[in-house]
Amino acid sequence: MKALDNIKAAIRRKGADVLLVTQPENRRYLSGFKAPDLSIAESSGALLVFTRFSPLLLTDSRYQLQAEQETTGFGVVLVQHNLWNTLLKILVRRNVLKLAFESHYFLHDAATKLMDLGQKHGIEIIPVSNMIEKQRTRKSGEEIQKISQSVLLNEKVFLEVYKGLRPGQTEKEVAQQIETAMRRNGAEEPAFSTIVAAGPNAAQPHAVPTDRAIKKGETVIIDMGLKLDGYCSDMTRTIVLGKPDSRTVKIIRLVRKAQRAALETIKAGILARDADRAAREIISRAGYGKHFGHSLGHGVGLAVHEAPSLNKMRRNKLQPGMVVTVEPGIYLPGWGGVRLENMVAVTGDGCTILNRDTTFLDI
Amino acid sequence: MKALDNIKAAIRRKGADVLLVTQPENRRYLSGFKAPDLSIAESSGALLVFTRFSPLLLTDSRYQLQAEQETTGFGVVLVQHNLWNTLLKILVRRNVLKLAFESHYFLHDAATKLMDLGQKHGIEIIPVSNMIEKQRTRKSGEEIQKISQSVLLNEKVFLEVYKGLRPGQTEKEVAQQIETAMRRNGAEEPAFSTIVAAGPNAAQPHAVPTDRAIKKGETVIIDMGLKLDGYCSDMTRTIVLGKPDSRTVKIIRLVRKAQRAALETIKAGILARDADRAAREIISRAGYGKHFGHSLGHGVGLAVHEAPSLNKMRRNKLQPGMVVTVEPGIYLPGWGGVRLENMVAVTGDGCTILNRDTTFLDI
Repeated sequence: MKALDNIKAAIRRKGADVLLVTQPENRRYLSGFKAPDLSIAESSGALLVFTRFSPLLLTDSRYQLQAEQETTGFGVVLVQHNLWNTLLKILVRRNVLKLAFESHYFLHDAATKLMDLGQKHGIEIIPVSNMIEKQRTRKSGEEIQKISQSVLLNEKVFLEVYKGLRPGQTEKEVAQQIETAMRRNGAEEPAFSTIVAAGPNAAQPHAVPTDRAIKKGETVIIDMGLKLDGYCSDMTRTIVLGKPDSRTVKIIRLVRKAQRAALETIKAGILARDADRAAREIISRAGYGKHFGHSLGHGVGLAVHEAPSLNKMRRNKLQPGMVVTVEPGIYLPGWGGVRLENMVAVTGDGCTILNRDTTFLDI
Repeated sequence: MKALDNIKAAIRRKGADVLLVTQPENRRYLSGFKAPDLSIAESSGALLVFTRFSPLLLTDSRYQLQAEQETTGFGVVLVQHNLWNTLLKILVRRNVLKLAFESHYFLHDAATKLMDLGQKHGIEIIPVSNMIEKQRTRKSGEEIQKISQSVLLNEKVFLEVYKGLRPGQTEKEVAQQIETAMRRNGAEEPAFSTIVAAGPNAAQPHAVPTDRAIKKGETVIIDMGLKLDGYCSDMTRTIVLGKPDSRTVKIIRLVRKAQRAALETIKAGILARDADRAAREIISRAGYGKHFGHSLGHGVGLAVHEAPSLNKMRRNKLQPGMVVTVEPGIYLPGWGGVRLENMVAVTGDGCTILNRDTTFLDI
């Protein structure tokens, strides 16, 4: 597997013999093991990717069968009492004395234990950050295909629910309808908690659905995404039931214009912050700069939020195969908000918009 | 607030002036702020609990309004660029030079940054573990009341779905039906991904629902829980559609007997491992010891898995107000599995079973 070879090379470059992989999406990316973690403190398994041996998946009795069914090329090792003993035995037996671990997905108290163990047994412990995430930013053709399928299913669900939307339904009801429709349509699960925020509630970019009934004429932000075959989608539409007033129309069109400016800028080689700036300038020039408080977008793949971040500080270059959201927004306390989010795949000379839905052109 | 006073005392005992609270349930427990974290690397906020000042909630623009609405007694501080700068300013301004952080819910790379910062500015950084979790293990009367409500709603949902269960439905369909019914009945969300595992799939204690259709006569493990007003429930029933064969009846009754033995043992003052042993002995004596691979139970509260753990290693004593699951199981590869899980509140002279459902007595 090419991904695994690239990681082995990266492990060697860090001077290590093996990488302990604890981050759940990294684990799935390399091994195919689908189990999520209940929390970071309750892992369903960890990988050991050796530079010189076949990789292993360490898991406990709860997940052993699933691990054997879902992985290929990985030996499955049963952890009986605690991870540390099992890990130590494996390292000592193979005479592997330089262990890298994922500093960005490893708890401080666990790292302290790991370092104590290393000191006691002459094993060098090497923290590394985002090694696999970095590789995950550039998607293969097959991955982009899977992400596109996820995007299209998400749109299908959106349109199904949108058609039936009526004033008087509550935010919670609509959010629930969406998540039920996701599962009925074959999604693994929602990629995140669906946001339905109407009227003044839409002034919070990450609003939680409430029992507020949707009224005619107000903006309703629907931010939704699902997982399909492990890959996430993430889309936001701002809709209005009935006729929007002129201010609403103005703001919706402004956000649309900002999104278009960003889309026209995005291609391999530009800086992430330049994509952000293209959209932000449009919004700022119209006098709403301080009401666009979040960044333009983020990578999407096995995780719904992953690298790269498209924000005004980032100087990293966009690369072909990156899949990112483009989601400018304007939020006015007391009034409401507008956000428009599509996903694109970066190419050498531009970007491919993965969304097909054009609902946002209605206004 | 009493919980806050207890934590302040614990912070003083650790020789610190302030505790940075990053663990989401701890954050909610102390402040009332309900926002979840998208992941440990994407926090919706952190608390600063001072021994000598009023507490603060640090959050970003996405959550500011929500934070102001949901907390009482907490100052809400807007983090504009990054947490570290904001944190440093606050500490320096108040001349607070001993900062404790939650080592068990703090990423290694973030801890490294925090320690660098401390070194540069003469701030002592003190890792602490499970300080608030320890207090959370003993529930107040009000908390037990909320947990009971969560348990009863969970049972209502179970019975609603159970009544309609027919052979031919797939595991996924049933799981989806359960989660939809949870939301329709007013749950905040499922407390974890619902497990529906039929026939041989039930041999995996943490099976993920598949497209397998449920057949007559086989065991079906349904493990479900929901959140209500922040508090979790967690219940497992093993059901059989149609008539179970004699082996199935035997194993179900054995698990029931093991559960009863544990329930009779549990009271304040016993060791956690003794509760585990009471159930395990029954199962082992019947020859199924190695097929009960997990521990007897775990605490439940704001988190669905929290301290204390009831496993064969734990020597910690059960205390009044602890709420734990009691969930023995037997899993036979190729055949299936049986698990029975109720929740109890520990009292001075025994325990109160929070469940009312007796479906498992049918067989």
